[in-house]
Order: sequence, then structure tokens, then C-alpha cells
Amino acid sequence: MNVGRLDHTAVAVHDLDEAIERYMRLFHLELVDRQVAPDGTVEAAFLRIGDSMLELISPILNDSGVGRFLERRGEGLHHIAFAVDDISGALLSLEQDGVELIDRTPRAGVHGQIAFLRPQSMRGVLVELVMH
Amino acid sequence: MNVGRLDHTAVAVHDLDEAIERYMRLFHLELVDRQVAPDGTVEAAFLRIGDSMLELISPILNDSGVGRFLERRGEGLHHIAFAVDDISGALLSLEQDGVELIDRTPRAGVHGQIAFLRPQSMRGVLVELVMH
Repeated sequence: MNVGRLDHTAVAVHDLDEAIERYMRLFHLELVDRQVAPDGTVEAAFLRIGDSMLELISPILNDSGVGRFLERRGEGLHHIAFAVDDISGALLSLEQDGVELIDRTPRAGVHGQIAFLRPQSMRGVLVELVMH
Repeated sequence: MNVGRLDHTAVAVHDLDEAIERYMRLFHLELVDRQVAPDGTVEAAFLRIGDSMLELISPILNDSGVGRFLERRGEGLHHIAFAVDDISGALLSLEQDGVELIDRTPRAGVHGQIAFLRPQSMRGVLVELVMH
């Protein structure tokens, strides 16, 4: 598997407008885009930093992964995403290496195809793979 | 202030050797370096991903920020670091914008000068500034 870039680091927030305004104003970051995820559970904004991005995500439904995270832990760092060339091949290779997958097959994300790995296999980190 | 890159995203872990081996093996990441921080409280390893890095950090002293984090929250995402050109100017500008600083003046980090901002000002995210 080839990880080309740290695609993004994601922060779970309650108020997406406020968080976008804050990070853009304080750090002069550029807004790449803002979209509701295809599954309708969260809204996400991407701010460019070098060849990576900061993703700000806020739940639309409280009964979503991000909603439950906010309830349990409050706002803060939520996951990281590695950009890969071949997401199906990457999932297969990770599974063969004993990594537990949340998504066994890729699904549509805000940008391309995505899949999440279980934090238990990643020293407590929720890792996303993304193929643009 | 000019944020050039997402310098790194840091993960707090109990066993640094195991975490380095795991992330290098699974994602074919290159180890940039591994050092004890100048203040002697943590050991850090940096793995390159594109123009950013994944930092794995483990406490040497349990009575350290990272040691307390692990005790309270367990392993996982700990902080993000923005690369800046002028760290003193950045701290002044952030303070004028109402951001609460942990380090009011830069101090020596593993790579260059660093300063941390309070998560309360950053939607729950511990943000580090680093000037190489």
C-alpha cells in the first residue's frame, strides 16, 4: 500500500460555522469546500494546509458516530485520513495484516471513496483511508 | 501569520517501539527521526507522510502532559502542529485575537521552537506552533 499524503486531520465540533470562521481567521486558512456527507449524518468543511487539510465535522444527526463522539468526549481531534491509490487493495492488505476494519468495502465519502479502520488496531486512532 | 504546512499530527501511545513498528509496517511510512524532547518528559518519533508527519509520542515521566492524557483518555490523537515562519509574531497575533496560550514565549522542541495554544480556544484541539 502506498500512502501518498496525510489527506486530512479531522476535528469534531458543535457549531460548524463558528469553527470554520475561527480557524480561517486565526490561521488564514483557505476553505476548500463544505458539504453534507453522502450518508447525511454529518456536515464537513475542509481547510487547506500545505498538501493536507484540516476537516471540521459536525453532526446533523445526534445518533451518528460524530454525534456520539461529541456527547462522550466533547469537541476535539476525531480522526486522520491517509490518501491511498488503491483503497480496495489497501483494505485487503490491512486485513491480511490483522487490522480490524470498520468498513470492509469502500463507500462514498465527501471526497471519493472512503473506509475506516478500528481504533483498537491503531493505538486508539480512528484512521480513514480515502481514494480521490 | 502564515501557516505553511500541517507540520504533524501527534498520537499518544504507551509503547513507542510497538507503535513505530506498527505504523511503518502497515502504511510503509518512513521514520524521519526519534528523539527525547529537550525537557525530558516525552520521547517522540516522526514518520513522514507527504509534506506532513505523523508523530508518535510516549511519556518518559508519568507526571507529564502526555502521561496524564494517557491516564485520562487512553491512547489516541493528542495534538496537531502548524508550521509557522515567525513563531513570536504568531503568538502575539493570536493573543491579540483572544486566543489563550499555554506557552507565552517559544521554547525548544524536538524540531526547532515550539509553543502550545489552549484547547479551550481551539474547539477542544491542542494546537502547537512550530518554527523550524
